[in-house]
Amino acid sequence: MRNIRQRLNALEKLNFDMYRKDFLLTADKSQDDLEAVIGLAEVIEGLYRNNISARAFQSGLAVSIFRDQSTRTRFSFASATNLLGLALNEFDESKSQVTHGETLRETANMISFLTEAIGIRDDMYIGKGNAYMREVGDALDEGFEEGVLNHRPAIVNLQCDIDHPTQSMSDLAHMKNYFGGDLENLRGKKIAMTWAYSPSYGKPLSVPQGIITLMSRYGMEVHLAHPEGYDLMDETIEQAKNFSKETGGSFKVSNSMEDAFKDADVVYPKSWAPFAVMDQRTKIIDQGADQVALDELEKECLNTNAKYTNWECDADMMKLTKGGNALYMHCLPADISGVSCEEGEVSADVFEKNRINTYVEARYKPFVIAAMILASRFRDPVALMDSFYRKRNRRSGSFSV
Amino acid sequence: MRNIRQRLNALEKLNFDMYRKDFLLTADKSQDDLEAVIGLAEVIEGLYRNNISARAFQSGLAVSIFRDQSTRTRFSFASATNLLGLALNEFDESKSQVTHGETLRETANMISFLTEAIGIRDDMYIGKGNAYMREVGDALDEGFEEGVLNHRPAIVNLQCDIDHPTQSMSDLAHMKNYFGGDLENLRGKKIAMTWAYSPSYGKPLSVPQGIITLMSRYGMEVHLAHPEGYDLMDETIEQAKNFSKETGGSFKVSNSMEDAFKDADVVYPKSWAPFAVMDQRTKIIDQGADQVALDELEKECLNTNAKYTNWECDADMMKLTKGGNALYMHCLPADISGVSCEEGEVSADVFEKNRINTYVEARYKPFVIAAMILASRFRDPVALMDSFYRKRNRRSGSFSV
Amino acid sequence: MRNIRQRLNALEKLNFDMYRKDFLLTADKSQDDLEAVIGLAEVIEGLYRNNISARAFQSGLAVSIFRDQSTRTRFSFASATNLLGLALNEFDESKSQVTHGETLRETANMISFLTEAIGIRDDMYIGKGNAYMREVGDALDEGFEEGVLNHRPAIVNLQCDIDHPTQSMSDLAHMKNYFGGDLENLRGKKIAMTWAYSPSYGKPLSVPQGIITLMSRYGMEVHLAHPEGYDLMDETIEQAKNFSKETGGSFKVSNSMEDAFKDADVVYPKSWAPFAVMDQRTKIIDQGADQVALDELEKECLNTNAKYTNWECDADMMKLTKGGNALYMHCLPADISGVSCEEGEVSADVFEKNRINTYVEARYKPFVIAAMILASRFRDPVALMDSFYRKRNRRSGSFSV
Repeated sequence: MRNIRQRLNALEKLNFDMYRKDFLLTADKSQDDLEAVIGLAEVIEGLYRNNISARAFQSGLAVSIFRDQSTRTRFSFASATNLLGLALNEFDESKSQVTHGETLRETANMISFLTEAIGIRDDMYIGKGNAYMREVGDALDEGFEEGVLNHRPAIVNLQCDIDHPTQSMSDLAHMKNYFGGDLENLRGKKIAMTWAYSPSYGKPLSVPQGIITLMSRYGMEVHLAHPEGYDLMDETIEQAKNFSKETGGSFKVSNSMEDAFKDADVVYPKSWAPFAVMDQRTKIIDQGADQVALDELEKECLNTNAKYTNWECDADMMKLTKGGNALYMHCLPADISGVSCEEGEVSADVFEKNRINTYVEARYKPFVIAAMILASRFRDPVALMDSFYRKRNRRSGSFSV
Repeated sequence: MRNIRQRLNALEKLNFDMYRKDFLLTADKSQDDLEAVIGLAEVIEGLYRNNISARAFQSGLAVSIFRDQSTRTRFSFASATNLLGLALNEFDESKSQVTHGETLRETANMISFLTEAIGIRDDMYIGKGNAYMREVGDALDEGFEEGVLNHRPAIVNLQCDIDHPTQSMSDLAHMKNYFGGDLENLRGKKIAMTWAYSPSYGKPLSVPQGIITLMSRYGMEVHLAHPEGYDLMDETIEQAKNFSKETGGSFKVSNSMEDAFKDADVVYPKSWAPFAVMDQRTKIIDQGADQVALDELEKECLNTNAKYTNWECDADMMKLTKGGNALYMHCLPADISGVSCEEGEVSADVFEKNRINTYVEARYKPFVIAAMILASRFRDPVALMDSFYRKRNRRSGSFSV
Repeated sequence: MRNIRQRLNALEKLNFDMYRKDFLLTADKSQDDLEAVIGLAEVIEGLYRNNISARAFQSGLAVSIFRDQSTRTRFSFASATNLLGLALNEFDESKSQVTHGETLRETANMISFLTEAIGIRDDMYIGKGNAYMREVGDALDEGFEEGVLNHRPAIVNLQCDIDHPTQSMSDLAHMKNYFGGDLENLRGKKIAMTWAYSPSYGKPLSVPQGIITLMSRYGMEVHLAHPEGYDLMDETIEQAKNFSKETGGSFKVSNSMEDAFKDADVVYPKSWAPFAVMDQRTKIIDQGADQVALDELEKECLNTNAKYTNWECDADMMKLTKGGNALYMHCLPADISGVSCEEGEVSADVFEKNRINTYVEARYKPFVIAAMILASRFRDPVALMDSFYRKRNRRSGSFSV
């Protein structure tokens, strides 16, 4: 419990500014904003561990809009919003014929009259997902300003074409804890964000983009490695460069997994589709979704993929890392060679050794999402958490209170 | 906050009788019943605006049965029941093979053991929707009387073949507020409930029927206008006539949109299918749903529709209204010319001018639904609201309490 | 209310041990475990009836995994978890591509970070359903031991290939109440668990297996009757035999419905598929789900079924029972001759006479499920219930508190 008090004290010194703002990209947030989210997530997790209720709401809706499949993030959002006292409503566009433009503006308001938080996943098409979230946000701004909405619901990006901030922030919380509980300890540490082989097609770019744009803000040596042609979006590369300069770290891009793994403190080997392919796919779909063209693109992409089956995180590769013992990270589910596929991102022995650690990594996400919502919906979320801590209302069982 | 106290005082003077009764048709309810629902909705909205919790239930289910698509009403029901502390369960008949008769009687009880409210939308077939709701209600009556159910859950009609009472009551609340906050102010005001062109087929009759049967109870001049053949159900026309007589208003039916709009204080231009077509469709479906016959009926109906594209609410039409400035109403989504369709119910400029107002109109629905549930489930809902008002438990955040 | 106090006192004398354990089979549980579940269910039902809140959780998720259709059990689980304060999330595997093995181990943890209870129905394949639940349980054990999970969620078997414990325990609670409120009164009473004709195919064996393995533990004369070939799983027959010996009852298997009904105090006529057919179906599916083979098996099974249309519970059959007035039981929905099918399990007149009683029988299920969850999640669930009873927080309405 002492930890909770210390964290509350530390949070009070931060100068963050997220009230009534959405959490769409970590790159939009200040250092203090990010630190506040991590700190709040840790406090909420501490309250939970100590069976102290963090119900910030007696009633209120949370709405999720998933334009792509999800298990982990779906349950994380469900857990986070439930923890705060909100009731989840999944907005199924297939039942509602929502489109962009006029209809979106209207629908955004119609689902928000008593809504506190909206989580959106829209990660399939380059140039679309984040833009969609901003369009929803603009509609909510108007609704709030015009008095249609009693308050401005918080939008949380549950993965878009550019970033996957609930993932990268959970990863950051995990790294912070793993390396002694202080973000300062990340300074100078090397993280290898590398492509890895997978027999699948069309995995979003948002995780590697989210990792390089976030970890470059803590003075880390960020090494991005991928086969030729598997580039990320230019703007995220630029951001990673700039953040590295600002925070005294380094940012390097190479085509060598070995080079990236060498002396790395952290490795994050994960498959993604090349930006050019994702971009072309979006264009084909915009021009009427010609199935022949889409099938050809997929075939071509899988053929290219197949050249790089050696981009696997196996025991030999791990030996290259700092002390042969780097922290292995993955957003899950991983493509495990011989387990979930014939050849994949990671060998079965390496994954098994690190499996529980990846579960622990995933475990931060509900608390990170809850922190993002609190930071957007409350003017002083730290004071609110402090009051919960002092009250010590039990979350589970109440007979001994 | 003074408003809330005044409204509670006004509610105490009403002689309403809705305990353990369903809200299926406004025509079944007394003037005091209707006024109580409006008043309770306003109180609940006032509590919400002042961040006072209205959780009437610590636990309990709300069940929704949607036999037709919905976004607005779905979220309104979700919001209303959440506001009262209930957890929503959407009952998906496709997963449960529910039919009429024996099975319905049984199922109605099986889903109701710990249920407080059931919302039903069944608006597709003439003679079916409201009858279905009454069949569910009869089963619940039996279950309650026989001791199977601990209490009698409230059924709320979320749109049937005859009425759309949560919509019309929200519209009434909006008009009341718009015209100075007193239902008496509606007396003598003219409302034009008119058909409008839409390129779609099979829109229910429940909104216009709901509007004419409700607004005729407040001494308004109700003018229903539609092209020849777009008649509503006879019984609703009769009710509107009778209510008008009783309350000193007037009720007129014509085939002229211009005539209806002339000097109107309120206009409600909206598309619907002709009763005869809806009736024939129901018969075809009853006789085995012959697809050729259904397709022909749809084609025929769309062809007829196409003759009336001039039934559009545009700027010229609006100039005919009182001061050229009537209150424009719509249940949303509207078919907006050049926006959501080529030619539609309303021109883009007229809609844009009134857009925010239609959002505000929609905003009443969650509070109206919550009021209907409270009125059915509590012997003295006013005393309950009064206790919430006096306690001032915060709905969101609680650190300053 | 005196009943609640008496039941709490009786519960305190029991020596049960279910903390952190799953409820998968009644056969795994001690007599005191079973009695504690019945007793807790009765207390929770008593609190509910007296409008006393039993919210054991201020927040927390319940997850349901339905691998087969369900209405009754789905709503029972929703009701039970809501009553305790949990928010239900239905885990739709079709959206999540969950399989066995590695993925299941991972997914079980990913959906459990803030989860208190998981309900699983997996009843379609012999040798699979219960095994699947145990695999989930093992994954949760690991997650809890490794510190991934803050606590061990409770798994409740909502029907598997072997047992349907929430059904049989509800049936037991119903019988206890029907025969004077004391389980001791069941001693020496005869229950006829018989097959009955149904025109459907592939009904699980879990209900008859659950009934014979549970009712044989209370000194009852358990008579299982079915046509030749409609055998149950051997292990459940063995268990029923052994339990009967231990508790001074008897267990008999015959091929005569009449023999079973003769002088029975309770009759439970219900259709099921023969074990051999269910077993063969599972094998066909394991070998690639050859549709021709599956269709042939279904045809063959329905042909065999059709020989036994005389296995119907009609008025003549009921006359054979004790005083012609045995308690008729069914898990619902029943196949009622001339109502839900041409020829079925029960004649319309017999069913109608007992209909309300079957509703009452079903009504116990939410409370039984709630009891199972409490027993697994709380070290001292009786003390918790006692505290709720003493506090008397109102569940519905709170203005008079």
